[in-house]
Amino acid sequence: MITARPAKVWDLPTPVLLVDADALEDNIAVMAAVLPGERLRPHVKAHKCTGIARRQAAAGHRAFTCATIRECEGMAAAGLGEDLFLANEVLDATRLGDLVRAGSRVTVAVDSPQTIAAAAAGGVPEVVIDVNVGLPRCGCAPGDAGRLADQARAAGLAVRGVMGYEGHVVGVEDESARARQCATAMGLLLAAHADVGGDLVSAGGTGTYACNTWATEIQAGSYALMDTAYGRLGLPFIQAVFVLATVVSASPEYAVADAGLKTVGMDHGNPQIEGATVWFCSDEHTTFAPPRRVGDKVRLVPAHVDPTMAYHDRLYVCSGDDVVDVWPVDLRGWAKAD
Amino acid sequence: MITARPAKVWDLPTPVLLVDADALEDNIAVMAAVLPGERLRPHVKAHKCTGIARRQAAAGHRAFTCATIRECEGMAAAGLGEDLFLANEVLDATRLGDLVRAGSRVTVAVDSPQTIAAAAAGGVPEVVIDVNVGLPRCGCAPGDAGRLADQARAAGLAVRGVMGYEGHVVGVEDESARARQCATAMGLLLAAHADVGGDLVSAGGTGTYACNTWATEIQAGSYALMDTAYGRLGLPFIQAVFVLATVVSASPEYAVADAGLKTVGMDHGNPQIEGATVWFCSDEHTTFAPPRRVGDKVRLVPAHVDPTMAYHDRLYVCSGDDVVDVWPVDLRGWAKAD
Repeated sequence: MITARPAKVWDLPTPVLLVDADALEDNIAVMAAVLPGERLRPHVKAHKCTGIARRQAAAGHRAFTCATIRECEGMAAAGLGEDLFLANEVLDATRLGDLVRAGSRVTVAVDSPQTIAAAAAGGVPEVVIDVNVGLPRCGCAPGDAGRLADQARAAGLAVRGVMGYEGHVVGVEDESARARQCATAMGLLLAAHADVGGDLVSAGGTGTYACNTWATEIQAGSYALMDTAYGRLGLPFIQAVFVLATVVSASPEYAVADAGLKTVGMDHGNPQIEGATVWFCSDEHTTFAPPRRVGDKVRLVPAHVDPTMAYHDRLYVCSGDDVVDVWPVDLRGWAKAD
Repeated sequence: MITARPAKVWDLPTPVLLVDADALEDNIAVMAAVLPGERLRPHVKAHKCTGIARRQAAAGHRAFTCATIRECEGMAAAGLGEDLFLANEVLDATRLGDLVRAGSRVTVAVDSPQTIAAAAAGGVPEVVIDVNVGLPRCGCAPGDAGRLADQARAAGLAVRGVMGYEGHVVGVEDESARARQCATAMGLLLAAHADVGGDLVSAGGTGTYACNTWATEIQAGSYALMDTAYGRLGLPFIQAVFVLATVVSASPEYAVADAGLKTVGMDHGNPQIEGATVWFCSDEHTTFAPPRRVGDKVRLVPAHVDPTMAYHDRLYVCSGDDVVDVWPVDLRGWAKAD
């Protein structure tokens, strides 16, 4: 689908998503050294790109975490369906069951009788009990986990263990506070695990990959590409994704680049530009100071990587100024791929 | 590309973008009554959908505003290239020139010698001088407009007039303050127009469509679908776009729907759910209270329509509970369509 590409980064039409190949490989290697093989279950929601998932698989991680059915389908289609865990609740598991029937291993999170019934009806044979460990989102009360596991087994499902995402902890800036809160959350998860059984205690993210020593597998995703929110935590991962933009207008006080709030996730705030202050983003523009000249290129660093990736249909892999590859961001959207 | 669709809204897999056909037609009709024909140049950046542009054309508007080259290309491909105005600066107008050579009428905004040179080099024969009327974004200083028009004419370009977007005014909640500030901005634009000449004074948005009586054409876009930001202004347009979601998890205190911050633009804040308070959005979830039951459907109303549309590849047109059509959101992205 995506064929022609300029040889140099600066020749790409803007706005465009760039991934620094060396930074990406560094991040993947640093994580794989700490959490080798199945100790990491990379979360594909952060990059939505099977090209990146393939690099993670090449580093030894063969089991992946997904947030949507579409992500599971795309990973299976890319030959990465050895052990896919949809860490999310669904009430219609038919499309997941189709993947199982076609040969993928798919496990789905459940936290209620309805989601257990959906897994059974859809033909997903393996589940994980999702436990609320402090983030008010999905997950049953810890004390209900054992009972739900019994219900799942009674419905003919294999229960592989528990998950509990400490999403309220991963962004805590103070490292010792983060570790303390992580311990509290994992205490809840381990208590639930004692009632549930199974091999898996799945949890964690980029902010807690090192301090979460209780989970059997960490679901980190953002570490591969990074963003300014995680960049503040002093982690050993470096910024690998940027939106390349061109200055299309300039005044004595400010300049305007041709990448705006449709190119970056805005829930964590404005993107950053090195050496400049971002004033604001409009749909297709970012106004910043001090001004640069019309025609200059700038790189936006997104505040939140996940919703940034979801705005782009492709990414350009670069090494220095050279464009070395182009990968489709092929796990976007929710409907079954046409 | 998009074929199968359930007959009822509630049977659609979620999350999914819904457009209420009756609300859409109402909004288009209300606007066309106030600003008929060429008095409105609908901005397609707000919906990124030629299906909606066709409805606007059917209401009598044959000239359109675009924010990206890709939007111009998509409009031309859909047979809506009678009079396309790219209200944005570009430094490479080759793709726009290709549209002109293929028979579309394309006009591009210029605000610098570089953008004038780009229009001439790319083969776009008509330009509009973009004037800064108070929003620190694109646009030349009002006093420079005449000189730029002379430069453009010297480069062989036809100058159709001026544009000046009062983007700092369109969201002002107090109606009389909005009208006053609009008058100030348009005073600057009319002064520039006196120096530039040409038929067009292009400006305005959904917030100023009624009070901006100085522009010859209004570039409103959001009015067709609306969002909560414009919903606060007491305009005669009603909410026509929603993200349909399913409650996938519930506790005694809150419920969790399966549409998150990858389904709605977040720069204007959280989406709203009627009868509920949204606590927060995660990538694929919205937590809200009071809780609803697992399996219940809820509709998210986006805070900002433009970046919401850019997250979706299709929209489902509904009338009451019936799904009556499905339209691709076909103007997304920036690269030339494959």
